[in-house]
Amino acid sequence: MTKAAYSLPISDLAPALRDGRLHPVDLLDAYLERIATHDPALSSFVHLNAAARSDAEKAGKEIAAGKWRGPLHGIPIAVKDNYLTQDMPTTAGTAAAGLDLPLRDATAVARLRKAGALMIGKTRMHEYAWGMETPPTRNPRDLSRVPGGSSGGSGAAVAAGLCAAALGSDTGGSIRIPASLCGCVGLKPTFGLIGRGGIVPHSWSLDHAGPLAATVEDAAILTAAMSGPDPDDPAAVGKEAPHWADALESGVSGMRVGVCRRHFFDGLTPDVEDAAERALSSLSAQGARITEFDVPELDGGLGAIFAIELASSTAYHDHRLRDGNVADFSPDVRTLVEIGRFVSGADYLTAERYRRLLGERFAMQFQEIDVVVSPTLPLTAWRVGERRVRVGSEEESVLAVSWRLTYPWNLLGLPAISIPVGNDRSDLPIGLQVAAPAFAEFALLRVAKALEDSFGTLPRVS
Amino acid sequence: MTKAAYSLPISDLAPALRDGRLHPVDLLDAYLERIATHDPALSSFVHLNAAARSDAEKAGKEIAAGKWRGPLHGIPIAVKDNYLTQDMPTTAGTAAAGLDLPLRDATAVARLRKAGALMIGKTRMHEYAWGMETPPTRNPRDLSRVPGGSSGGSGAAVAAGLCAAALGSDTGGSIRIPASLCGCVGLKPTFGLIGRGGIVPHSWSLDHAGPLAATVEDAAILTAAMSGPDPDDPAAVGKEAPHWADALESGVSGMRVGVCRRHFFDGLTPDVEDAAERALSSLSAQGARITEFDVPELDGGLGAIFAIELASSTAYHDHRLRDGNVADFSPDVRTLVEIGRFVSGADYLTAERYRRLLGERFAMQFQEIDVVVSPTLPLTAWRVGERRVRVGSEEESVLAVSWRLTYPWNLLGLPAISIPVGNDRSDLPIGLQVAAPAFAEFALLRVAKALEDSFGTLPRVS
Repeated sequence: MTKAAYSLPISDLAPALRDGRLHPVDLLDAYLERIATHDPALSSFVHLNAAARSDAEKAGKEIAAGKWRGPLHGIPIAVKDNYLTQDMPTTAGTAAAGLDLPLRDATAVARLRKAGALMIGKTRMHEYAWGMETPPTRNPRDLSRVPGGSSGGSGAAVAAGLCAAALGSDTGGSIRIPASLCGCVGLKPTFGLIGRGGIVPHSWSLDHAGPLAATVEDAAILTAAMSGPDPDDPAAVGKEAPHWADALESGVSGMRVGVCRRHFFDGLTPDVEDAAERALSSLSAQGARITEFDVPELDGGLGAIFAIELASSTAYHDHRLRDGNVADFSPDVRTLVEIGRFVSGADYLTAERYRRLLGERFAMQFQEIDVVVSPTLPLTAWRVGERRVRVGSEEESVLAVSWRLTYPWNLLGLPAISIPVGNDRSDLPIGLQVAAPAFAEFALLRVAKALEDSFGTLPRVS
Repeated sequence: MTKAAYSLPISDLAPALRDGRLHPVDLLDAYLERIATHDPALSSFVHLNAAARSDAEKAGKEIAAGKWRGPLHGIPIAVKDNYLTQDMPTTAGTAAAGLDLPLRDATAVARLRKAGALMIGKTRMHEYAWGMETPPTRNPRDLSRVPGGSSGGSGAAVAAGLCAAALGSDTGGSIRIPASLCGCVGLKPTFGLIGRGGIVPHSWSLDHAGPLAATVEDAAILTAAMSGPDPDDPAAVGKEAPHWADALESGVSGMRVGVCRRHFFDGLTPDVEDAAERALSSLSAQGARITEFDVPELDGGLGAIFAIELASSTAYHDHRLRDGNVADFSPDVRTLVEIGRFVSGADYLTAERYRRLLGERFAMQFQEIDVVVSPTLPLTAWRVGERRVRVGSEEESVLAVSWRLTYPWNLLGLPAISIPVGNDRSDLPIGLQVAAPAFAEFALLRVAKALEDSFGTLPRVS
């Protein structure tokens, strides 16, 4: 290994592990060393796995014995702390006493282990996946800034090279937001592709599991490995994704790239807007056809996802609200869970009707286009402690500004990825979002890969 | 025609119409004459169709020209007043001004017309399908008693022989309840089998369309004719039902008949309980295997369907509530729609989670049984004006007692039929309910037909 192992994607680590040029224990140690050095400032991990070393040793023996399981064998993965794990406690980001989440593997974690991966530790998350800052985690690109949330620990850990990749969950943008702000790849696959059994629920009809990774190919490898049946998730469709990773170089020639300037290009900072335009030009130059379209109904959507998410989260936490057992919540999350009581069933159903309408509108558009490209967020990482940010002449809450461009794909359950497309003038990463119809991950990955080939991946923080 | 035409089922009228022994105009006139005689006391119709005569003439000409369309050609059907019709106004049972429902056919009505049926008139319903009495309609078996609701006009009209059959809608039992109390057959098919396009919504995820008819075979004929694709109902599955009517005589030998004494046999009047036991003995004597089973979760369900129905109905009427435009509502319905505002989104989702759990429990049971048999209601028709009824030692609201045994099949979207199985000591009809797995209407119809063969159909009121 000539290059520091921590800086390599899984697609490069895998052959080195398979051929014995790299030992899983050495790879694990490389990450643990970086965690020891960098995580005191980042605070991206909440728990390190005492069992990881013996898992790495076991993987090394298996590989040496010719029993290589595939590209994830011996790869250290960090796990968002709302996935249950058999070898680490789970807190869902809360300090609440007596939560007593069981020591068993979430379905996605179990599938990764079967593919040979080992779990290096649990990453910090915004409490109960409700929020966009993930305190006290910091952004590895600029320690005065937030990593985003709610999978902020995962985003920071991947961007800082503290693990090969990490797991996140995404209810309104919680994988793509930290990926965008920290400068890595985040993929929220189609609703139902990855089972959510053993992931602490936030909002049943909006929650998605997915990876944060260094490259598009790594995100594809992890998503395929986690996809499949899940008896513990009634929404799991039960199909295993194909090995897209083998075909990502197919290019974008002839692909129809949709651009909806309404909503997805409203209220952007100039650097984000420029980066998105450069990405579209690049796709066009590579033979994609750019098609403008409009979905006027997008104007009303933020209220709909808030109604659904508030009602769902409150339904989940209701017994604690009723028992008055809320002192352990952090104030911001407690407020949201309490507000959720005032979303009426009628409001909830109105939101669900909006969701269906929006789905019909996009289904119509997707007859003419293959993907939708937009920025992931209107801005880059804001400073720790800011509650409102200025985008152009408008001031906006960080909650609204974070979700604005990501939430439609949660409402619709459609796959969406965020990839880095360079930095702004403050050297902060800018994320580009590519979305596609249900189970059309391959289209999305091809476009993302073509952009990655043009813009390059951001280096792990050194 | 030796027997009065009004007293015959569609399956007997159809060959007479086809062979020219009966003319559609004469059949229509027979019903209109009965309406003129009996409906002043019953008040089951709110509108008679001025176009019915020319439709009957047209049907007569087509049949004479050898263009017989099938068993519904020339058959006069009454339509619950929440189905849109192109030739009659629609009020959904409300006196509200400015409702302005359009003059076009609901999908189910259009399908019946295509099959050659003609629409004789619109039947009275409890306002917005919210209630169990359908005032001022009376029960043709005893004019001092309610016909049930919300399809009370349809139940009364069919039992009184004022039409060949009628259309109803069923959100918690609204087809089966009047069928049971008036003494006819009522079928609520599987959710999605009959499209609901053009039916005024009450609760999107609970509403079902279906027929009230004189016999099991007639109900099967009508359901098959109305089934199929519906671009105006996103929940329509789009499949056409087979012509079950041809195979209803297959008997029940070897069929597994499930009996859940918990819930479905709790708190019955002695006559209803006796009738249900006689029905089970009859099925057993005909070769069916009676299997007892238990679903303890049934104890908690009435609250769940109320939460869903209240929230949905309020969502539909919300703009009127907000505008303060509710003076036109009758007091009972206004109260329910206003109460619906206080069902929280969290309550709604808790109810939806209960619905899923109950569905899983029944899916498990349906691996061992083919149908579930129970009474349709715990009692027979109560007196007009009664708000609470006594069943055994318990007093119960008429809303709760009506729904108690019917609502589980709405929550689960499973097909259920009510058929008469004789009378109680006051000569009031007793209804038996047969339910089956999704799209297993054939199983349910076979069992219902076997019981009908044993117990006989109740005569149309003469």
